[in-house]
Amino acid sequence: MAGEFDFIKWICAQHGPSGFVRLPQGDDLAVLKWLGEDLLLVGVDQVLDGVHFDSKIHPPRAIGRKAMNRNLSDCAAMACLPAAAVATTALPHGIGLEHAKELYLGLREAADRFDCPIVGGDTASWDGKLVVTVTILGRSAGIEPVTRGGAKAGDGVYVTGALGGSILGRHMTFDPQVILARQLAATGRVTAMIDLSDGLSRDLEHVCRNSGVGAVIDANAIPIHPDALAAAKDGRTPLDHALNDGEDYELLLTGRLEESSGNLPQTLTRIGRIAADRQILLNRDGKIEPIEPHGWEHPL
Amino acid sequence: MAGEFDFIKWICAQHGPSGFVRLPQGDDLAVLKWLGEDLLLVGVDQVLDGVHFDSKIHPPRAIGRKAMNRNLSDCAAMACLPAAAVATTALPHGIGLEHAKELYLGLREAADRFDCPIVGGDTASWDGKLVVTVTILGRSAGIEPVTRGGAKAGDGVYVTGALGGSILGRHMTFDPQVILARQLAATGRVTAMIDLSDGLSRDLEHVCRNSGVGAVIDANAIPIHPDALAAAKDGRTPLDHALNDGEDYELLLTGRLEESSGNLPQTLTRIGRIAADRQILLNRDGKIEPIEPHGWEHPL
Repeated sequence: MAGEFDFIKWICAQHGPSGFVRLPQGDDLAVLKWLGEDLLLVGVDQVLDGVHFDSKIHPPRAIGRKAMNRNLSDCAAMACLPAAAVATTALPHGIGLEHAKELYLGLREAADRFDCPIVGGDTASWDGKLVVTVTILGRSAGIEPVTRGGAKAGDGVYVTGALGGSILGRHMTFDPQVILARQLAATGRVTAMIDLSDGLSRDLEHVCRNSGVGAVIDANAIPIHPDALAAAKDGRTPLDHALNDGEDYELLLTGRLEESSGNLPQTLTRIGRIAADRQILLNRDGKIEPIEPHGWEHPL
Repeated sequence: MAGEFDFIKWICAQHGPSGFVRLPQGDDLAVLKWLGEDLLLVGVDQVLDGVHFDSKIHPPRAIGRKAMNRNLSDCAAMACLPAAAVATTALPHGIGLEHAKELYLGLREAADRFDCPIVGGDTASWDGKLVVTVTILGRSAGIEPVTRGGAKAGDGVYVTGALGGSILGRHMTFDPQVILARQLAATGRVTAMIDLSDGLSRDLEHVCRNSGVGAVIDANAIPIHPDALAAAKDGRTPLDHALNDGEDYELLLTGRLEESSGNLPQTLTRIGRIAADRQILLNRDGKIEPIEPHGWEHPL
């Protein structure tokens, strides 16, 4: 019967030292030669069966891809380059070596798009459901990291794509906006940035709270994804879906992004402005009301 | 009802920037200012309910401590200093905020012993069992990392403590041997090192395989823990427990550790020697037999 060590052996045969990876996985820890001038960014994200994916529906490769892409999206949010990742899998008993390999290949497929080596990991099987956890290391590589905390009154508020209804499938298939984030941050005009994982209403609140500001969002300006229209048959409006569904994995950013011509990069939609007053408001055809964050929160 | 964000808010209030942590958790990623001359080591380890702990028996603080200590033990195995950690928790629904805080305090308690800040994390609740995953960043801090791959024929084989029967309780309460590992590695006489997590027989195999060597172990020299004697009422011998139980979290190392006086540091027991021939052998009162690795392996 195949075991953990067969899986680890297979993984270790997948690639060796490269770039600044001096010693890849296969020891107790991987060893990297970091560039001193690069800031090191680090974060972690897990995906759980029944919460972030459904193992009865989603193939293992798609689950692996999503686990990695969520972390790459965090790199986008900070405008850093993915540098290396480590990953763990808690595998249900009897899942099989081929299934485990597919998971890993999904992780690799997503990471390879950004030349991000997977340098370590841990795997175990258990009498429980599938968990995949990825830790990402990013490097600033010449661009100062963009936090959630720099928004200033008068800044525009922008999103990089249409929102809502990602549960219909996009939450598994999104592309992390790493390249676009770096292009935007390189202009020096981005003051704050976050990726839309918890939902626009809640992620905007994160930015406003960290920056000590408020915002006024124009309801008519929010780009509504066709999936939000499709999802609206549940009785909630498409706008409600765009505001409160999670897992869009587009970027929400603030700053002065209009070019000298007054035009906005095609990739951006301006949806409102930052205000000194700390309230977060929605302007619906002139009717102003507070936005209550309704994005996803896990109860404890 | 308390939710994920209450937990995160509480965590973020626990500590701010310090040392080389420029931006602690509370953003998409933490930002660290790395010292260019330091090698960066990274690894990850998870603990699963029913595999590495039993949530019906072990209090959450002990579970948190173990999750962190397993990673700190990996730092010991490489002779690096813990520099920063990130952690995730997959919390069963209804576990409660106080329980979650206790888990985190356990993580912190273990990390604080080595001034290792927890700089990020991810938490979710689910219809599944408790999972705690910790990623550790280590720094070489003047000592070249010790791998599993440097053992040479003629080296001695040593362990830092008595082995076997950790399931009786020590697997939850061990102290990671970070300081001792650095002291030993600083002598320049350690050629390979690993922490004993899978069991002596299997971890010795890891070292021998990575180093391209074999070993002859003296059965009478293996320090048997009193717990291995107690565990032997299951019918397996104390030696079998010492060879094959996992989770001792002592160090197994190779090299020429005898001092010029011929004495060994008190903390070490010499249990055998490395041989050029790749076989891994046990000498029982002159009867030589191969050691079959029987340490823990998760079936898939």
